[in-house]
Amino acid sequence: MTVRLPEHEDLEAAYTLLRPLVRRTPVMEVAGGDLGVPGRVLLKLELMQHTGSFKARGALHTVLRMPEGTTGAVAASGGNHGAAVAWACGIAGIAADIFVPATSPAEKVRRIEAYGGTAHVVDGYYSAAYDASRRWSEGRDVVAVHAYDAASIVAGAAGVGIEVGDQAPFARRVLVPCGGGGLYSGTALALRERIQVVPVEPERCPSLAAAVEAGGPVDVDVSGVAADSLGAARIGEHAYAVAGALGAAPLLVSDDQILAARRLLWEECRVLAEPGGVTALAAVMSGAADVRDGETVVVVVSGANHPTIPEDVVAPVSR
Amino acid sequence: MTVRLPEHEDLEAAYTLLRPLVRRTPVMEVAGGDLGVPGRVLLKLELMQHTGSFKARGALHTVLRMPEGTTGAVAASGGNHGAAVAWACGIAGIAADIFVPATSPAEKVRRIEAYGGTAHVVDGYYSAAYDASRRWSEGRDVVAVHAYDAASIVAGAAGVGIEVGDQAPFARRVLVPCGGGGLYSGTALALRERIQVVPVEPERCPSLAAAVEAGGPVDVDVSGVAADSLGAARIGEHAYAVAGALGAAPLLVSDDQILAARRLLWEECRVLAEPGGVTALAAVMSGAADVRDGETVVVVVSGANHPTIPEDVVAPVSR
Ligand SMILES: Cc1ncc(COP(=O)(O)O)c(C=O)c1O
Ligand SMILES: Cc1ncc(COP(=O)(O)O)c(C=O)c1O
Repeated sequence: MTVRLPEHEDLEAAYTLLRPLVRRTPVMEVAGGDLGVPGRVLLKLELMQHTGSFKARGALHTVLRMPEGTTGAVAASGGNHGAAVAWACGIAGIAADIFVPATSPAEKVRRIEAYGGTAHVVDGYYSAAYDASRRWSEGRDVVAVHAYDAASIVAGAAGVGIEVGDQAPFARRVLVPCGGGGLYSGTALALRERIQVVPVEPERCPSLAAAVEAGGPVDVDVSGVAADSLGAARIGEHAYAVAGALGAAPLLVSDDQILAARRLLWEECRVLAEPGGVTALAAVMSGAADVRDGETVVVVVSGANHPTIPEDVVAPVSR
Repeated sequence: MTVRLPEHEDLEAAYTLLRPLVRRTPVMEVAGGDLGVPGRVLLKLELMQHTGSFKARGALHTVLRMPEGTTGAVAASGGNHGAAVAWACGIAGIAADIFVPATSPAEKVRRIEAYGGTAHVVDGYYSAAYDASRRWSEGRDVVAVHAYDAASIVAGAAGVGIEVGDQAPFARRVLVPCGGGGLYSGTALALRERIQVVPVEPERCPSLAAAVEAGGPVDVDVSGVAADSLGAARIGEHAYAVAGALGAAPLLVSDDQILAARRLLWEECRVLAEPGGVTALAAVMSGAADVRDGETVVVVVSGANHPTIPEDVVAPVSR
C-alpha cells in the first residue's frame, strides 16, 4: 500500500486553519543536569493542549475538513483520541459518537460527555468498540475519524513540528512518543531535513520497530504502562512511509524507564504527564537517546490524561 | 519604619546574577473563554521553577550575596521557603539548617533533605520553629534568610516581573498571589508604571488588606486552604511601601474560589498547582479582577508543592 503524504503547503494550510482554535503550547528549557544527562532539554509542553493531549490538533483539523453537510463524526477510542474528537465536534457544531470499550476508565467517558459527545460503552476491548462503531455508522451521514493513519490527522499533528521549528530553531533533534505514528509523522514532515525527528516507543508497544524489521507494517502484541495511549497494534502506513523516507529508526524504552521519567518530571518541573506522554523523555533519561554535551534536544511531552492521579507520582525519587 | 527599596539597577544586577541558575519559566496563552471570562489570560508558569515555586529566586539571590566566608544559612519555614533555601545553599556550597514546625507534612522535610539541607523538626507551630532557629544561630557564623521582608529577597523575586515584561509586553495587568509580599513587591518594582501589578490575597490571610486599612503593617489571624504558603501574619515592610508608592489595592478571594481555580486549571490546562499558587487565578475566575473583553492579563501561578496530590483535583468540574 502506498499513501499520499501531505505536502509542505498542506501542513501550512492546516496550521493556519487551526491556529485560532488550538493552543500554541509553551517550551521550557531545562538544564540536562536536572534530568541527569548532559546538554540541555527543551520540553514542548503539549500536554497543555486542549483536551490534555496533542490529539486535539489532528482531530479538529479532520473535523473542519469534512465535506459540507456532514452531520456527525464517529470514532472508536477509549482514550485521548475520543476526547479530542468530541471536543473538535463541539467546536464544529456537529454530533460526536464515540465508541468506548467497557475496559476504559469511567473518567474517560466523563470527559467525552463533558465535551458534549455521546459515549457508547461497548462490552469487550478496543476491537469490539471499533466493530460496533462501523456497524453503527452504516447508512448514517457520519464520517469516521481515524486515530492516526490519515493525511488530515498527520497534517494537524504537524503543528507541533511547526511550532518547535519556531520555538527551538537551534535544536538538532526532536524526540516524540510513537504509537500509531500520527504525532511522529506530522512532526517529522514539518521539520524534514531542518531538525531530525526521532520516534520513541515502549518496548511493549513496538509497532514501528517491528515494521522496520519486517519491511512493512505488521501486527504486534501491545501491553504495559503506556498501552492505553501508545498501544496501536500496527504502525500507520503514513508513519511507516515517513520513517522510510527520512531513514528514522525508533528508540525503545522500558516500562520502568517510562515511570521513572514521569516521576522525575514531576519532581523536577512540576509537570504531571501520563506514561505515554513521557515516553520520549524516558529515552533521554535512560541514555537511549545519547544526548551529548552542548547538544540541545527537544522532547515532546504529549499528554496528561490520568484516570486518577496516582499517589506514587509524588513519592520519593532517588537522585 | 522605613525601608530602602531596591533600585532598578539592583533588580537588573540580581537578574544577571541569577539568570544562569534559575529557570526562565514559560508563559502560556489561554483564551479567557476557557476559564469562563472575557479577554485572554497569560499564565506565567512559575511553579516550574526549581524547587516548585518562585521562592528559589529570592533564596538563591540572598545566599549568593552573603558576606564572603559565611559558612551557612538558616531559615525557619515548613514550606516553600525552606526548600528554596536548602536548594540555594546546595548551589552555593554552604550548609543549610532549616527549622520546621512539627506540624509540617513529612514530604516537606523530605524535600529539604533531598536538596542537601538539614531539617530541624521543632515541636509546635511556626513561631516555635522561628524561636529555635534564633537560639541555634547565636554565636554561629550563619546568616538568617527571611522569607519575604528583605531587599535581597524582593530583588530576586523581581525576576518574575522582568521576564513578564519581556514575555508579555502588551499586557496591562499582572496578578500575583500575596502572602508576606516578596513576590508582589519584586514583580511590581520590576514593572513599575509599565504594567500594573495587582496583589491577590485569600480572605483568610489578608495581611496586606489589613495593613492598607490600618495605615501600616499589623498582625492578622491566618487560616484556610492557602495558609501554608500565603499565611504570613504580617505584610512585609517592603511590600507595604511598594503598595503605598504605587497605589495598589489587594483583591481578595475565598477558599472555595481558590479550590475551584485549582481544579479548573488542571481540567483545562493540565497544570497542577497548590492552593496558594492559584490565588491570583482565582481573582480572574471569580470576577474580582474584572477582566474585560480585549484585555490581556498575566496571572502568575507561583507554586506546586503538595504533600500529596489529592484525589479531588481530578474529580469532575461543572462547566
Ligand atoms: C498522550 C499521547 N502521546 C502519544 C500518542 C501517540 O500518538 P500516535 O498514535 O499519533 O503515535 C498518543 C496517542 O493516543 C497519546 O495519547
Ligand atoms: C507558592 C507560593 N506562592 C506565593 C507565595 C507568597 O509569597 P510572598 O510571601 O512573597 O507574598 C508563597 C510564599 O511562600 C508561595 O509559597
